[in-house]
Amino acid sequence: MKVCKFGGTSVASAEQIMKVAGIISSDRSRRIVVVSAPGKRYPEDRKVTDMLIRLADAALDNKDTEPLLAEVVGRFSLIAEGLGIGGEFVSTVEEDLRSRLAADRPHAGRFMDLMKAAGEDNNARLIAAYLNQIGIEAVYKSPKEAGLIVEGPAGDGMADTESYVRLSKLKEETRVIVFPGFFGYTKDGVLCTFGRGGSDITGAILAASTGADMYENFTDVDGVFAANPNVVDNPALIGKMTYREMRELAYNGFTVLHDESLMPAFNHSVPVNIKNTNNPAAPGTLIVKERECKTQPVIGIAADSGFSTLYVDKYLMNREMGFGRRLLGILEDEQISFEHTPTGIDNMSVIIRNKFLTPEKEERILKRCFDELKVDDAHISSDYSMIVLVGETMRYSKGLAARAAMALAGSGTNIEMINQGSSEVSIVFGVKKEDEKKALRAVYNEFFVPAHAHTF
Amino acid sequence: MKVCKFGGTSVASAEQIMKVAGIISSDRSRRIVVVSAPGKRYPEDRKVTDMLIRLADAALDNKDTEPLLAEVVGRFSLIAEGLGIGGEFVSTVEEDLRSRLAADRPHAGRFMDLMKAAGEDNNARLIAAYLNQIGIEAVYKSPKEAGLIVEGPAGDGMADTESYVRLSKLKEETRVIVFPGFFGYTKDGVLCTFGRGGSDITGAILAASTGADMYENFTDVDGVFAANPNVVDNPALIGKMTYREMRELAYNGFTVLHDESLMPAFNHSVPVNIKNTNNPAAPGTLIVKERECKTQPVIGIAADSGFSTLYVDKYLMNREMGFGRRLLGILEDEQISFEHTPTGIDNMSVIIRNKFLTPEKEERILKRCFDELKVDDAHISSDYSMIVLVGETMRYSKGLAARAAMALAGSGTNIEMINQGSSEVSIVFGVKKEDEKKALRAVYNEFFVPAHAHTF
Repeated sequence: MKVCKFGGTSVASAEQIMKVAGIISSDRSRRIVVVSAPGKRYPEDRKVTDMLIRLADAALDNKDTEPLLAEVVGRFSLIAEGLGIGGEFVSTVEEDLRSRLAADRPHAGRFMDLMKAAGEDNNARLIAAYLNQIGIEAVYKSPKEAGLIVEGPAGDGMADTESYVRLSKLKEETRVIVFPGFFGYTKDGVLCTFGRGGSDITGAILAASTGADMYENFTDVDGVFAANPNVVDNPALIGKMTYREMRELAYNGFTVLHDESLMPAFNHSVPVNIKNTNNPAAPGTLIVKERECKTQPVIGIAADSGFSTLYVDKYLMNREMGFGRRLLGILEDEQISFEHTPTGIDNMSVIIRNKFLTPEKEERILKRCFDELKVDDAHISSDYSMIVLVGETMRYSKGLAARAAMALAGSGTNIEMINQGSSEVSIVFGVKKEDEKKALRAVYNEFFVPAHAHTF
Repeated sequence: MKVCKFGGTSVASAEQIMKVAGIISSDRSRRIVVVSAPGKRYPEDRKVTDMLIRLADAALDNKDTEPLLAEVVGRFSLIAEGLGIGGEFVSTVEEDLRSRLAADRPHAGRFMDLMKAAGEDNNARLIAAYLNQIGIEAVYKSPKEAGLIVEGPAGDGMADTESYVRLSKLKEETRVIVFPGFFGYTKDGVLCTFGRGGSDITGAILAASTGADMYENFTDVDGVFAANPNVVDNPALIGKMTYREMRELAYNGFTVLHDESLMPAFNHSVPVNIKNTNNPAAPGTLIVKERECKTQPVIGIAADSGFSTLYVDKYLMNREMGFGRRLLGILEDEQISFEHTPTGIDNMSVIIRNKFLTPEKEERILKRCFDELKVDDAHISSDYSMIVLVGETMRYSKGLAARAAMALAGSGTNIEMINQGSSEVSIVFGVKKEDEKKALRAVYNEFFVPAHAHTF
C-alpha cells in the first residue's frame, strides 16, 4: 500500500488534477492521497494559500473581504469547471469560506490557521468528487474525523503519538482516501496547521501510521538533484539516498524538501519516493534507511547563504576554563542557535544564521563579550555562505576534503572555514557569499563531472 | 643592551661555561646573564635539578640525605675544578644546601621550591666567580635583593607588576649581572619557583623590565626548526617568525620553547633570539612582533599526540537551544578545557587533551550526557594527534588547506577532523595517532621541499 502526497503545483489546475487522477488509477496500491492547496500554474501566479492569508489579514483588519473571497472562489470555480464538476460544488466552497470568516476569533493565530487550511480542505473535497466522477471510488476524509490530533502553537503544530494509532484505521477503508494536508485539530477541536512543509508532514504521518510500503511524494521535478539546478547546469539526479543524507541536504539549503517534514515516515522505516506528477514514469529519487553503493562518496552538494560569524579574541583564552560555555550562554540568552564554532588558541568564532540576528542583538552580544568575557576584540561579519558536501560513504574515502579544497582553490575561492570531524555525513566549507556560486560549481564539477576530477 | 639566558645544557660543565664566558666577552652589550642549573652533558646524564628533587624527597621522607647531597656537591665540585675555582667555593655550595635542608618546613611545596632553586642559585654564583676570574667584571644578583616578587602557588609563581619597576634598576649596574633563573620570592620573603620554562621566564622578565634591545635565549640547537627533527630529516631552520607563530607552535607541541614563558618579553616588544651556545656564530631564530615576508606562508608545522574526542549524537540537536553550552558545562564541572568542537546537525565532538581525562571522569561525563542531555549516543575515543600548520601569512594564500589535505591524502592519512576559520595563524588537522609521523612528513614535504609541492 502506498500513501501519495501531491504538492501545490501538482493540483494547481484541472489539467494537473487530471494527471493526478491518472497516477492514482494506474496503480491500485495508491490508497491514500494527501493533497495541498492549489499552487502556482506559472511563476507569477498566486497560490491559493497566499490568497487565503490576504483574506484572513483583511478580516483581522476589518477591511472589505469580498474581493479577496471572490478571488479564492474564482480559482476553485475555474478548476471545478475544467474538471466538469457542477456549480453546486463552488457554492459549498463559498459557504465554507464564509463560515470560517464568521467564526469566533479569540486568537488571531488560530483564526489564520483556520483560514489557511481552507485551501487544502476544499481541494481535497474537490479531488475526491472528481475521482468518483471518473469512476474511482474515493472518499474525502477530514483530519478531525480521522483523529489527527495536533499539539503546539498556531502555525507550528506536531501530531501527538496517539494520532498514529487512530490513523492506522484508515487502511481498513476500501475506497481511495483523499486527505487534506497541512493541518489537524487540537484536543479541544481547534484547527491547527503544521509548520513549513505541512502537507509533506501529513503524508509522512499517514504513511507511518498505516505502515505503508512506500510514501510517494509527488512534486514538479524529476527528483532531487545533486546540486541546485539554478547554479549548476544539468546537475545529476540522485537515484537513491539515505534519510541522513536527505536531512543534511535539506538542512543545508536543498529546498525541494523540508528537513524534518518526512521524519514520521523515516522513523517508521517507510521509504520515500520523490516523483514528478508531470513525468510519473521517471523513477524519481528514492530515500531509504541504508544504501549499499560506495562508488559515489559525495551524493549531493548544498550551498546556502545567510550566515554570520561572531569572532572573539582574548589572549590566553585557552587557559580560561569555561570561556566557550559562557560565550555560547550569551548567544542562548538572545535565543540564538549556532551552527559551528571553529577555535584557535586565543580566539573562537561562532557561525550563526543571519535570521537569528538583529542590529540590537548584535550590539548586546558584543557589549557583553567586552564587559563580561573581557575579550580583547569582538566583531560580527555577515555575508558568509556554506558549501556542504553530503554522503554517507565519504568517511570510507580518503582525500575527499583535499579534492574539495583543491577544487575551491582552483576556482579562486578562499576557504574561510572548514568544519569536518563530527558528522560522518558532511564536510562544511565556509566561503564568502560572493564566491558561493563559483564554489558550488567547482566542487560539483570535481565530484560529478569525470573530466574535472583530480586524482592522487 | 641584551639580556642573555643560558639553558641547562649550556651550563652543564666547565667546558660549556667557558663557551658562555666567550659569548659574553665577545659582545659587551650582553649585560645581564640569566643561568639555569647544570643540565645534562649527555643523554643519560642526570640534571642537577633532578638531583635536588630527589634530595628534597629524601628529606621529606626522613631518609638518609647524605649520599644525595654528596651527588650535588660532587657535580658542582667537578665544574668548579674544571674552571680552576678553588675548593672554598665547593664548601659554600655544601653549606648552602645544608642550610636549605635545615630550614623550617611548614609547607612541603615551598620546601621543594627552596631545594630545587639551589641549582640555579649556586650556578649563578659559580659563573659570576668564573667571569671575574677571567677578567670580566661580574656580580651575582639575588632575585630577593633585586626585588623579583612572585605570587601564586609553590612551583607555579608569576611575577607581580611592581617587580618590573624594581628590576628596571638593574640596567644601572656597570658590571655583568649573573642572575639565577627559575625563582623569585613572595612578599613574605619565601622562595617560590616559576612553572615550566622557569629560567626562560626570568630572562624574559629581566629583558622586559630593563627595556633590553634583545633577549638572547641560548640553548643547544641552532634555533627553531620548521618541524620536529626527530621525525623529519634535516628540517629547515626558521630564520624569523612572529610571537603569534611561536606561541601557536609551542602550544601545539614545539618543545624548544614554552608557549607562555617568553610572553613578558613579547608584551614589552623585546625581540627574542634563540641561539646555540655551541654555535654562537649562527644567526639562530629571531622572534619579532611582525614580519614582512609573504613568500613562505607556512612557517612551521607542529604535531602533537595525546588527544581524545568526546562524540555525542542526538536527533534534532540543532533545534535544541543551549545543547552545546550544557555539554561544555559538563566538561567544565570536571575541570576540562577543550581544544576544538566540530559540529554536525545532530552531533557534536569535543577534542580534549588526554591529560585532562581519567577513566572515572570519562564515566561521569558519559553518564551525564545520557542522563542530562538525553543523547542517543556518546563515546570517547583516544589516540588522536593534531597536525598544525602555522603561519601569519597563510590567510593571504589561497589553496593552502587544499595543499595540506592533498599531501595528507597522498600519504594515505585519513583526515579525522579539520579546524580552520577562527585563528588566522593556524590550520589544524586531526589524524589518528598511528598516522602522525607520516602525516607530518607529508605536509612538511608539501610546503618545504620544492620537488614535492603541488600547484594549481
